[in-house]
Amino acid sequence: MSPWKAAHPGDAFEDIDTPALVLDLDAFERNLARMTQALAGSKMRLRPHAKSHKCPDIALRQIQQGAIGICCQKVSEAARFVEAGVKDVLITNQIVGARKVAHAMDLAARATIGVLVDHPSQVAQFDHASQERKTTIDVYIEVDVGMGRCGVSSVQEVTDLAQQITAAPYLRFMGLQCYHGSAQHYREPEQRQAAIRQASDIAVTMRHALEKLGIKVERITGAGTGSVALERDSGVFNEVQSGSYVFMDADYAKNHQGPQDVQFEHALFVKTGVMSRPTADRAVVDAGLKASSVDSGLPVVWKKPGVHYTKASDEHGVLQTEQANDPALGDFVLLIPGHCDPTVNLYDELICYRAGKVEAVWPITARGAAL
Amino acid sequence: MSPWKAAHPGDAFEDIDTPALVLDLDAFERNLARMTQALAGSKMRLRPHAKSHKCPDIALRQIQQGAIGICCQKVSEAARFVEAGVKDVLITNQIVGARKVAHAMDLAARATIGVLVDHPSQVAQFDHASQERKTTIDVYIEVDVGMGRCGVSSVQEVTDLAQQITAAPYLRFMGLQCYHGSAQHYREPEQRQAAIRQASDIAVTMRHALEKLGIKVERITGAGTGSVALERDSGVFNEVQSGSYVFMDADYAKNHQGPQDVQFEHALFVKTGVMSRPTADRAVVDAGLKASSVDSGLPVVWKKPGVHYTKASDEHGVLQTEQANDPALGDFVLLIPGHCDPTVNLYDELICYRAGKVEAVWPITARGAAL
Repeated sequence: MSPWKAAHPGDAFEDIDTPALVLDLDAFERNLARMTQALAGSKMRLRPHAKSHKCPDIALRQIQQGAIGICCQKVSEAARFVEAGVKDVLITNQIVGARKVAHAMDLAARATIGVLVDHPSQVAQFDHASQERKTTIDVYIEVDVGMGRCGVSSVQEVTDLAQQITAAPYLRFMGLQCYHGSAQHYREPEQRQAAIRQASDIAVTMRHALEKLGIKVERITGAGTGSVALERDSGVFNEVQSGSYVFMDADYAKNHQGPQDVQFEHALFVKTGVMSRPTADRAVVDAGLKASSVDSGLPVVWKKPGVHYTKASDEHGVLQTEQANDPALGDFVLLIPGHCDPTVNLYDELICYRAGKVEAVWPITARGAAL
Repeated sequence: MSPWKAAHPGDAFEDIDTPALVLDLDAFERNLARMTQALAGSKMRLRPHAKSHKCPDIALRQIQQGAIGICCQKVSEAARFVEAGVKDVLITNQIVGARKVAHAMDLAARATIGVLVDHPSQVAQFDHASQERKTTIDVYIEVDVGMGRCGVSSVQEVTDLAQQITAAPYLRFMGLQCYHGSAQHYREPEQRQAAIRQASDIAVTMRHALEKLGIKVERITGAGTGSVALERDSGVFNEVQSGSYVFMDADYAKNHQGPQDVQFEHALFVKTGVMSRPTADRAVVDAGLKASSVDSGLPVVWKKPGVHYTKASDEHGVLQTEQANDPALGDFVLLIPGHCDPTVNLYDELICYRAGKVEAVWPITARGAAL
């Protein structure tokens, strides 16, 4: 962590030290409102994914605007949000190992906690720990609905796991995790539609099989920012987990939008300063790999035509420029991160601004909480 | 930051929670010794780059083994090392803006601090601030020796800057920064040789021009882990700045080695656990983009033939496996990070182990110190 801060509330936007992660509060609040509006009247629960922001100040605002809780990806991440007052957290991951299970059960004594399973031994671990503590925890079966990562694929596996869960006295079987991660980044609306149709069909098949056994499926949960309107309109899902909509990154902006898609806008930027101006067509800024994630492509320069971010090294970013003095040495530019989630995870603080002034500095409390 | 620790001193290696950044102390110490030995008798000063490890415990060990100080990339990073007792830091970057200059000058009152310049206005800033405080700071001119990032290219620029620096009462002109970053990753020894020969030729041209003006060039500094023997044998450089040699990453391991190259070994790993085992040919581990940087390629599985890391998402890593139960759910594997510097920057602690036991936990004090 830096020994000093990039900015304090009340500072002028132009005085924020670089590199810094900055949030346009007006755009952020419009994104929150758009999601609320997009789900209004749909009976769809919103459980936004907090892995995108890792910031309790944002989670609490999402809940204030109607979210029923949040998702997290790791137990240690969930702990940060429970500490901050979030009462309902679904950890959208398999939790393996006695230590992690114990931490999850500690949280379950303080808040509503859900976990995913895709193997009998995960259920057995939680059965054992929950009985020992006489503490209830929610359990969801992850179904592989097309992304080929975690999750079971067959009806048999789903019904076996559900029976194992319902037989466990302190495990509450809640339903199915049916998240299609790859679909979020399919560029064409038709590709996303086809993927979520397939995911919905699989979810229905699994639900029917469970209902035939008398097992109630209370929740079918999934969806990301790229597909949220499709799950909303599916008639199958009843909870959505979008995370990136609060920020929007350069990768999501590459998705071609269909008529049904919800329009979000860029709210998160890396403010970076020009530290070297060696040639007329090259400026070097102070944001490289440790300031903006490049796994989903390089960051994109915001509202500066003719200026392109072309190369990232550890702490240098190379801009190609059309003019020798724009940006000049000491100027700053804003970058739209290629991928917001791992970019946020590089910072300890989010500098929130409005109307040219820093309004708040929010700690990114769950940064680095990977356990 | 996680609310709990991955391990404590005395824990068994197998009990380190995942994902965790772990250091094989025997391999690390062999790497330190190899660098000392490689430079022995060469009159070459070693000033290792601390951007690779961001860890004062490592910097102090490097200095104990003969390093004359360290390099940093950012002022805030340098501050962390000065606080920890490092007496000599070269910030291998241009420092722009009154706030950053003030911080650098604060450090210069407590330790020997060097900075790079490649523009008259950077010199002017430091001239002004150093006079105001009557505090001396070392200044190096960065020369673009072939990597096309920062640095001046012409003799005229070098001599102009050097005259400006020598005329400033509290600026001490030290010499030339001649780092060829791209050369570190050229795969063939001949390519690296050609690049460092060119860098050396440029450095000599600049030094001669300065000497003609009666300006002494005390230091010609540069080199990374991929080229260190070349700068050592150049007859031109008198200081090397290698950083990654303490750890070695998967990208450096792709360099074909020539007879003159110094052999370092992998000492840094991400320990990751299998959390899902959905198919016979797929295991999913708990280390994704937030646990291992992918900018220079995916991490490589250590000593486990037939097991390959094939895909990273935020907190998932997909392994392709030849056997259905190896690794099994709950097992761990070690990953060699694709690029050590940005991987280290994801973690708050480095778990150091030897002979199957955790020997120490070193804080990565300068993680996220990007200002």
